Amino acid sequence: MSSIKAPDHLPSPAEDCEQLRKAFQVERHSDIRLIIEQLLIIIPFHNCCVGLLVDQRAGWGTNEDLIISILAHRNAAQRSLIRKAYAETYGEDLLKALDKELSSDFERIVLLWTLEPADRDAFMVNEATKRLTSNNLVIVEVACTRTSIELFKVRQAYQARFKRSVEEDVAYHTSGDIRKLLVPLISSLQYEGDEVNKTLAKSEAKILHEKIAGKEYNHDEVIRILTTRSKAQLLATLNHYNNEYGNAINKDLKADPNDEYLKLLRTTVKSLTFPERHFAKILRLAINKLGTDEWALARVVASRAEIDMERIKEEYYRRNSVPLGRAIAKDTSGDYEKMLLELIGHSDA
Amino acid sequence: MSSIKAPDHLPSPAEDCEQLRKAFQVERHSDIRLIIEQLLIIIPFHNCCVGLLVDQRAGWGTNEDLIISILAHRNAAQRSLIRKAYAETYGEDLLKALDKELSSDFERIVLLWTLEPADRDAFMVNEATKRLTSNNLVIVEVACTRTSIELFKVRQAYQARFKRSVEEDVAYHTSGDIRKLLVPLISSLQYEGDEVNKTLAKSEAKILHEKIAGKEYNHDEVIRILTTRSKAQLLATLNHYNNEYGNAINKDLKADPNDEYLKLLRTTVKSLTFPERHFAKILRLAINKLGTDEWALARVVASRAEIDMERIKEEYYRRNSVPLGRAIAKDTSGDYEKMLLELIGHSDA
Repeated sequence: MSSIKAPDHLPSPAEDCEQLRKAFQVERHSDIRLIIEQLLIIIPFHNCCVGLLVDQRAGWGTNEDLIISILAHRNAAQRSLIRKAYAETYGEDLLKALDKELSSDFERIVLLWTLEPADRDAFMVNEATKRLTSNNLVIVEVACTRTSIELFKVRQAYQARFKRSVEEDVAYHTSGDIRKLLVPLISSLQYEGDEVNKTLAKSEAKILHEKIAGKEYNHDEVIRILTTRSKAQLLATLNHYNNEYGNAINKDLKADPNDEYLKLLRTTVKSLTFPERHFAKILRLAINKLGTDEWALARVVASRAEIDMERIKEEYYRRNSVPLGRAIAKDTSGDYEKMLLELIGHSDA
Repeated sequence: MSSIKAPDHLPSPAEDCEQLRKAFQVERHSDIRLIIEQLLIIIPFHNCCVGLLVDQRAGWGTNEDLIISILAHRNAAQRSLIRKAYAETYGEDLLKALDKELSSDFERIVLLWTLEPADRDAFMVNEATKRLTSNNLVIVEVACTRTSIELFKVRQAYQARFKRSVEEDVAYHTSGDIRKLLVPLISSLQYEGDEVNKTLAKSEAKILHEKIAGKEYNHDEVIRILTTRSKAQLLATLNHYNNEYGNAINKDLKADPNDEYLKLLRTTVKSLTFPERHFAKILRLAINKLGTDEWALARVVASRAEIDMERIKEEYYRRNSVPLGRAIAKDTSGDYEKMLLELIGHSDA
């Protein structure tokens, strides 16, 4: 369930654009304010004027509020229309305008949110394949929690944006077992029907159990089963595994809790079978980290607000005894905090 | 989320009563049919008439369909109005009429469903305290998955119906550790706010861990913490337990998987912290049992359809790889099956 709330009376894309433009223009005035303030610091004997300027800040600061009040309350289709109308009216990409006007964490969440979902995923996966921002978990997450058709669109968006295929970049960036897992995962177009072959589920559960018991975690068959079977079929296999061999598979994949390949296997299983819990865990780790992991926080909020954020909040609370909104409010501040809270539907935190 | 669907144009309670009355009268004619059929079996040379009678069955059989089409699509408040209107119009309690007309599993689910929720719980808890239908798990379930005010109403309904208090009957029916756990659970009126005292959560997690490590599962402090703390506070304690001592508490309470007291402790924890999963498990056990446990099935469907059945279905599928509706359709039949499927919102299974 989505956590974003559209207003009862939805303004037209043109009206939204006009308001956004206003928000940016206020911002430009406030650049002038900054220059004046800096001058005042340089010439301290004039600081009798500072009081006056500070009093006027509240009026100047409304621009970010206006941006939040519009963008955080429009769904993907509505944001796309706004972006189109903005380009037609002002001859400039809304994303470029936002990029110019905003900064730091607030900028990142607004940009991620405003991107088309498939393009956003392509952008994040690309970051994840770069040396300085490498993050294999993001690749698994995108591969396993999007629908087949969504993942296909991510791959198209990736090619349009980066002029390379996503599997090409993932393969180049990785090696060994991790490559063996990630390339088929990100390339898959799994069947999404409900049909389950029970005989197959039993025989593949047996294969998984044999290989895992023999510590052959990187066996071709393990990877084949986890990366090619439909969610329904894999769920049947994993449930049979649990029933027949006494443990959930992820428990048996914890032999070495710090091994990255095993971690990615566990993330694959969790993302495929219980995505809300996977995301709640990512949020938990992001927030509990010394110096919040803003990228993980923004990634999950931007990509799940319209999908299953209500359920993620439920799972978050179950494991942390603190509402997600309150945890975010404690660890973030300013416009960035406001935007996150609006997106998760917890602006009164 | 509720799984029942009210019609777009809701008939008045009086209209519903009229239709129900019609359904019962068709039923009376079909009693005559049964007598005729039996006569035909006794006098076989007359069986040229049987074909004729069989052809008319479809028309006679609509009564159960009509009952299902009305009652399965009215929420608790609407059913209560229907019952009131029925008593006023026909001078007879609707439940009595249903009891006369219906039979076996179908009768049980229709009656449970038609009862007021608090009265239904009182009825089921009373059964659970009787020797032949004893079921301590039902007592834990009602105590832990209803809100404080709902549980309070159950206790009032119990007194009105049985002229005794529920704690009186539970205490009389049980002994030893189980009594020590069940009596405070069913008598509690836990605070339902969100406030959490973290220091307390830590110190009580420590107490729980010490007692469990020492196998003092029946220690007064263990019972005090589990039976008196608010859900939010207990969740904080149990999460701290998990974080600090490395295991979810229920894992540490599995020392002897067949000990009834330990089972009830685990059910207490699961019902308080993840009710949807508790109910999905009860349904799983009920359906997988050789000869479905119809009482457990009817209990969960009747008591949760209006509360969280959509979520229970989700958890059921996650653990069984089969939609709940399909599992029920496979294990039940006739009007009983139809009623269950309508209530869980899966009539096209």
